[in-house]
Amino acid sequence: MTELEQLLELSEILTDDEFKSLASTIQVQELLERWESINSKIQLKIFESLLEDEKVIDLMLNLPHTAQENILTSISQENIKSLLSRLQPDDITDFVQELSEETKKAIWASLSEEAKEETLHLLKYDEEEAAGIMTPRFLAIRTNQTIKQALDFVRRNCSSTEIINYIYIIDTQKRLKGVASIKALLSNRDDMLVTEVMDKDLVTVNASTDQEDVAKILETYALVAVPVIDDQERLLGIVTFDDVIDVIREEQTEDIYRMQGISGKNTSSYKETSPMRLVLKRTPWLIILLILGTFTTIVMERYQVELTNIVILATFLPLVIQTGGNSGGQSSTLMIRGLATGELKFRDTGKIILKELVVGLTMATSLCLAVFLIIQFRNLFASHDIFFTEITELQESFAISIAFFFVVIIANLIGAISPMIIHKMGMDPTVMSAPLMATVIDVLGLTIYFEIARLILKF
Amino acid sequence: MTELEQLLELSEILTDDEFKSLASTIQVQELLERWESINSKIQLKIFESLLEDEKVIDLMLNLPHTAQENILTSISQENIKSLLSRLQPDDITDFVQELSEETKKAIWASLSEEAKEETLHLLKYDEEEAAGIMTPRFLAIRTNQTIKQALDFVRRNCSSTEIINYIYIIDTQKRLKGVASIKALLSNRDDMLVTEVMDKDLVTVNASTDQEDVAKILETYALVAVPVIDDQERLLGIVTFDDVIDVIREEQTEDIYRMQGISGKNTSSYKETSPMRLVLKRTPWLIILLILGTFTTIVMERYQVELTNIVILATFLPLVIQTGGNSGGQSSTLMIRGLATGELKFRDTGKIILKELVVGLTMATSLCLAVFLIIQFRNLFASHDIFFTEITELQESFAISIAFFFVVIIANLIGAISPMIIHKMGMDPTVMSAPLMATVIDVLGLTIYFEIARLILKF
Repeated sequence: MTELEQLLELSEILTDDEFKSLASTIQVQELLERWESINSKIQLKIFESLLEDEKVIDLMLNLPHTAQENILTSISQENIKSLLSRLQPDDITDFVQELSEETKKAIWASLSEEAKEETLHLLKYDEEEAAGIMTPRFLAIRTNQTIKQALDFVRRNCSSTEIINYIYIIDTQKRLKGVASIKALLSNRDDMLVTEVMDKDLVTVNASTDQEDVAKILETYALVAVPVIDDQERLLGIVTFDDVIDVIREEQTEDIYRMQGISGKNTSSYKETSPMRLVLKRTPWLIILLILGTFTTIVMERYQVELTNIVILATFLPLVIQTGGNSGGQSSTLMIRGLATGELKFRDTGKIILKELVVGLTMATSLCLAVFLIIQFRNLFASHDIFFTEITELQESFAISIAFFFVVIIANLIGAISPMIIHKMGMDPTVMSAPLMATVIDVLGLTIYFEIARLILKF
Repeated sequence: MTELEQLLELSEILTDDEFKSLASTIQVQELLERWESINSKIQLKIFESLLEDEKVIDLMLNLPHTAQENILTSISQENIKSLLSRLQPDDITDFVQELSEETKKAIWASLSEEAKEETLHLLKYDEEEAAGIMTPRFLAIRTNQTIKQALDFVRRNCSSTEIINYIYIIDTQKRLKGVASIKALLSNRDDMLVTEVMDKDLVTVNASTDQEDVAKILETYALVAVPVIDDQERLLGIVTFDDVIDVIREEQTEDIYRMQGISGKNTSSYKETSPMRLVLKRTPWLIILLILGTFTTIVMERYQVELTNIVILATFLPLVIQTGGNSGGQSSTLMIRGLATGELKFRDTGKIILKELVVGLTMATSLCLAVFLIIQFRNLFASHDIFFTEITELQESFAISIAFFFVVIIANLIGAISPMIIHKMGMDPTVMSAPLMATVIDVLGLTIYFEIARLILKF
């Protein structure tokens, strides 16, 4: 039995002090995982027991927004105050943006003047840019300081600062001149000037740098935090690794959604998205695909004679378009991912086409053989009237298998090339989602299928 | 013109010293982005110019494996030695696992005895577990030390340690007893014992904890590093935030691949995956889907009479199965993502079904209307013989639109429920990929389509 299970089991009989001391032993991770299954009265009691604990911050920041709201509307104004005083300004800013109007008001009233000012400052910036995710609390000292002075400064200020790995060195105009790591301060003589040990070859981002690029820079240099500067090179704040992890997760969800035809911007959690918003995120894409898909009806009309004369063609029709969509979806996914991680560039298109030709040929051959075998198995069953009823003639088997061969090759190439072209046009390649890919391939695949059948079966 | 562009432009005329000093001003991020477009002789020259610079480590670690190999096989044994001596053991371990046999040998020969030992130690562990991604270099001191002694220890050892945010406190059996942040050491009196300021309520992971869980824990607590302990609570190493970011990116690629029917394990980069490996990652899924898709041929056979008698049914067939696949793909994607981030649990299934019923009904109504309108437009065009030729009777329009309605509702529900069931069965819900979803929905969607048409058109 974990501590949380004990607590839930015994919540009725424990004294307040016992409850509090047991609550303090529970891991935040476990609380988060089971939070929603806990009765709301007990939730509140646990939260209040932890109020003085450092844990309460991790718990608060990781709960879903509705759970945060529930707590903020239930605890006393005084407790809100104490909680907010321990949050970093960038976290408060996130709060203020996500909560309901009412809770926002309650929070605002409880903020210190300093926090209000910092929050207002941060709200000025775009949420998706460096300045929108930075914290304005960092350690910065003037160029004329010694290491001893710098370390004293760190000692005095470290409690209010999230990250003390770097001490930024600024001039009188607040322009960033260099950075000294806490390592450098600790491992050099006390009487040296910070300018002697600082790194002048700075990695910085601009206030308007896109958050995804900030993430890439922090990753490349394995930094705990990246300084954010304005156009005059003045230091505005720092983006810390934990905010970068949030950005990576968020962008990841957006990409996955878009690749499946779900509008991606401002992806909040599933539970907290209202049914109406879900409909609005999904229906437009379904209707666009429906309209584009109408082209398939033109193809179907054109080959109606073939379809009604050779019934076996209709039988394999869903399978051939599905297979085309699958292989095209695979290759477009590989390209979209490669473009997203920055591994693939437009100039690689030539190499990609060559590679996908080789891959496509091999896959198409395997699938062509597989289809031929499947048809023979079908015949075997059909001759005993098990599952299947139609016997496919040998010539028809050939026609269908060869059609699969070409559909796979073409679908695979289109899947590989389209994201590169869309990327080159300056658009997000995730719009070339697997469903869109499948729709395009339906039109082409059906045409190939019927033309090859017509050619081989000579009608 | 950036510094890199200047360097490339002037590489022929610069003296070695000028080249070196210009090279040192280039940002690593820019080098990485353009590395492959640089002539290999210049690549080597740039790399060698940076050898004494700290940048060379960031550059080396972020280059693709083939580029790393090229460099390691071109620079002198002595330079390899100097390079390796500055790498962390966990990075060396990654190296040793990824490179070709030959390069491995060259690296091995250049490692110090200590590094060899550390590497061998790390290689013992599973790559996907906490111990496989940890570094064995951390700061640990005994329980009886004062803050002054601890800080002196940090000063002496910080150059060889990646992360100095936390100083771990261990007993004589190396069991982890607590952790003191560098903040706590700096902001307390020198003569206090570390045990007085340390945090005993530790966040740790076990050596065999899955790397994805390690990532979640580091994220929840916003830690720069998490300590890894064995079953006897002995401290083995720490997993740092930069390795966690790598894990998140890697798992993200795996998820996206699997969701599109590409085998996900050991996802290396597209460029470095041989065509044969790509075929092996993709073909098995295509063939499995082909075999499962064979069920559609049973359905097609059953409704052959309807298909040949009412030609308009065939015309809209690709569109109806595509739309079913799209809506099912959307809902399964939402569930898979929710399960991956931990937001959705099996116990939410009831609520999800209710929500998806509402969403599905609304979407189905919109799509039903859209299809009806599309058919009327088609008729308008067809009556003038533009694009289309067939006129759809009003009764047929109703039948087709209503069939779309039910296909969307059913597809949406199946898409929502299947990942939950697969998750409950202890399997990875990403196996319920969009292509698999589409195949299942093809079989069901076709049946619904024909049955509704039969019902309304009464034949």
